[in-house]
Amino acid sequence: MHNCWIEYDHTSDFSLYNLPYGVFRYDGRYGVGVAIGDQVIDMTAVAHIEQFQQELKIPAEVFARPVLNDYIAQGPAKHREVRKYLTRELTDVQSYLRDHQVLLSQSDVEMVLPVRVPNYTDFYSSRDHATNVGKMFRDPENALLPNWLHMPVAYHGRASSIVVSGTDLHRPCGQQMPKDAETPVYGPCRLLDFELEMAFIIGKANELGRPISTADADDHIFGLVLFNDWSARDIQKWEYVPLGPFLGKNWGSSVSPWVVPLDAIEKFRVPGPAQSPEVLPYLKYEGDRHYDISLEVAIQPDDMDETTIVRSNYRHLYWNMAQQLAHHTINGCNMQIGDMLASGTISGPTESSFGSMLELSWAGKKDVELVGGQKRKFIHDGDRVIMRAFAQNNDCRVGFGEVRTKILPSHKTKS
Amino acid sequence: MHNCWIEYDHTSDFSLYNLPYGVFRYDGRYGVGVAIGDQVIDMTAVAHIEQFQQELKIPAEVFARPVLNDYIAQGPAKHREVRKYLTRELTDVQSYLRDHQVLLSQSDVEMVLPVRVPNYTDFYSSRDHATNVGKMFRDPENALLPNWLHMPVAYHGRASSIVVSGTDLHRPCGQQMPKDAETPVYGPCRLLDFELEMAFIIGKANELGRPISTADADDHIFGLVLFNDWSARDIQKWEYVPLGPFLGKNWGSSVSPWVVPLDAIEKFRVPGPAQSPEVLPYLKYEGDRHYDISLEVAIQPDDMDETTIVRSNYRHLYWNMAQQLAHHTINGCNMQIGDMLASGTISGPTESSFGSMLELSWAGKKDVELVGGQKRKFIHDGDRVIMRAFAQNNDCRVGFGEVRTKILPSHKTKS
Repeated sequence: MHNCWIEYDHTSDFSLYNLPYGVFRYDGRYGVGVAIGDQVIDMTAVAHIEQFQQELKIPAEVFARPVLNDYIAQGPAKHREVRKYLTRELTDVQSYLRDHQVLLSQSDVEMVLPVRVPNYTDFYSSRDHATNVGKMFRDPENALLPNWLHMPVAYHGRASSIVVSGTDLHRPCGQQMPKDAETPVYGPCRLLDFELEMAFIIGKANELGRPISTADADDHIFGLVLFNDWSARDIQKWEYVPLGPFLGKNWGSSVSPWVVPLDAIEKFRVPGPAQSPEVLPYLKYEGDRHYDISLEVAIQPDDMDETTIVRSNYRHLYWNMAQQLAHHTINGCNMQIGDMLASGTISGPTESSFGSMLELSWAGKKDVELVGGQKRKFIHDGDRVIMRAFAQNNDCRVGFGEVRTKILPSHKTKS
Repeated sequence: MHNCWIEYDHTSDFSLYNLPYGVFRYDGRYGVGVAIGDQVIDMTAVAHIEQFQQELKIPAEVFARPVLNDYIAQGPAKHREVRKYLTRELTDVQSYLRDHQVLLSQSDVEMVLPVRVPNYTDFYSSRDHATNVGKMFRDPENALLPNWLHMPVAYHGRASSIVVSGTDLHRPCGQQMPKDAETPVYGPCRLLDFELEMAFIIGKANELGRPISTADADDHIFGLVLFNDWSARDIQKWEYVPLGPFLGKNWGSSVSPWVVPLDAIEKFRVPGPAQSPEVLPYLKYEGDRHYDISLEVAIQPDDMDETTIVRSNYRHLYWNMAQQLAHHTINGCNMQIGDMLASGTISGPTESSFGSMLELSWAGKKDVELVGGQKRKFIHDGDRVIMRAFAQNNDCRVGFGEVRTKILPSHKTKS
């Protein structure tokens, strides 16, 4: 590929190979942006260039919305054309783009939640994570529940409380059942945790009653973001039998602002794990459907340096996106544009790759050490949790940027 | 109250005391409607009457949308003014409304899903239902799980597949684990069931992090609809441990088209059950917060008469709407306008008031008899399930109309 006339460092997450979409706020207006280096291509400006209009034929107002949903609705073929157009123009030193004010500095804009999320689902697709949880709370000899190897287990989460990186969250209050107590108590969560996840965003809907096959799945996926599935472990533990997680989760989930298109990570496809027992036919798939994406989590207490405490990889998932989507729709469930389907905690086989404090501290039995001498079993008030992700080979780097959230003390509310 | 100049029968669900909101489709356009007798007041026409504009000051376009959300966003005070206006004008024989074309026949319009539902939550608030399920599948001596009497247990459901009355649904396919089998099978659901529920619709949002108290709850509730929480029992049974119901539920939920305002059922408030053990302070409430609303379910096989098989009442719930809303937000979870919060199956203490086939057939152990000699343990292809609800006293009747759904055979999909 030719050089890009916008200069960026080889360590930048936002190379020419990436071209992720986001929504920025600048000077009181919203716009669809594409990240490149430390710049944002303002697509509201690009949309008014005659050359773009003639080639792409996308109504300009689609790029002036506070969410990507209307752009996503243009369909996968149109997204590919835009990607091709931008790649061509960014490597053409005589590009029309250079004559127009299409660039903003990332430091000058505020990034907002990139999509309106009509529905949010959270899977549970890391075998190591499910095994760790099973060992801690159920039977160490039979850590996986009977259905786990037969289906990508999932539950519906809360869409309204998904927030973008940089949004502070208050420690939630709620019911907990203290050990050996006879009645529950009310108070601030004491076991506040993150979960390291990726989420994919639906790019094409299916009709109610009509499943999506694993073969067709990619065509329905617009792109991916980093996803922090915040969890209040004590609230969750007391409430979740029999209907699943609820208030332990729905006080907030944090996502990265840039949506990385599936096409951008195409060259990072890798084979998945052998699946045994054999899966039912609707869960079978062809080709490499997993992705090699490095994942990290760091904690930064107030006035301290950050410490990277997790190094994992998206390839550690047992169930891939195609299987997740095929399973979710096998009963006819209809996907909508902007839906987020999160992976579940992505833990790897080694302790340093465990994707939650629950696993790192083994349910609070040991400390996680931070630079500067502090220790953590769970997340404290004032801590920032920062997740990062990137795919990299000798040729290029495709990064997801970060999702960064600070935990504030709980609001005082009636006991 | 004076007489209404639109005549209706005393058995009509849509008396002057009701004035429920819906969205109709007529002549290729959408409009907000208010039901009265067998008529619909076309609010898009009312909105253009000068008197209405001057008194109410609501932009006319709010009434021309395909969903109620923008009207709901006008706020509770405005809804009261509109209700007062309509009540006044409908009892004034010289009303301006009579000079304008504001009425449509209900038989001439198509009713659509009344709200865009950003989030849907399903509670589990009938003690009799939870006890029945516990007796069938867990320990008959300890049927209720430990948390049940301490909190209104709930889970997130799927918003995308909520459909309006009259929408046919296909029997879903999915994984099931046959009794004594070693591996799961794929196929059409064999244990298809309804759940008799009511749902309330959020009329006012709260900010993320800020709970809604039981005292403030009513101000956040726009109104109620009938809700059929369709359930594929075999799919649900195999999937739901540990993260709750998913594909067993998210293939469809059906609602009635008319949203009955909370003000319309004000005079049907009744005391709730004594709650013991004592609930935590945030779940305490003042006054009568339950409602006396009669509920019925009928089954109508193809080419047969219908049989009413359930007679229950909304007052049978243990946890009321104020408690449900306070619990849902105690951790700061943010409600959005249009959110639906369903009650969970509303079963009463007697067998004829059980709100699902699961309970009526006691997990398939006995038959439910229909007129004409047919029998049912679960729902067959071609069956229509019809739910109805109404509040009634000597003075007036406030009904919810019905939610009616036909079950079609499953689509043929890859095994």
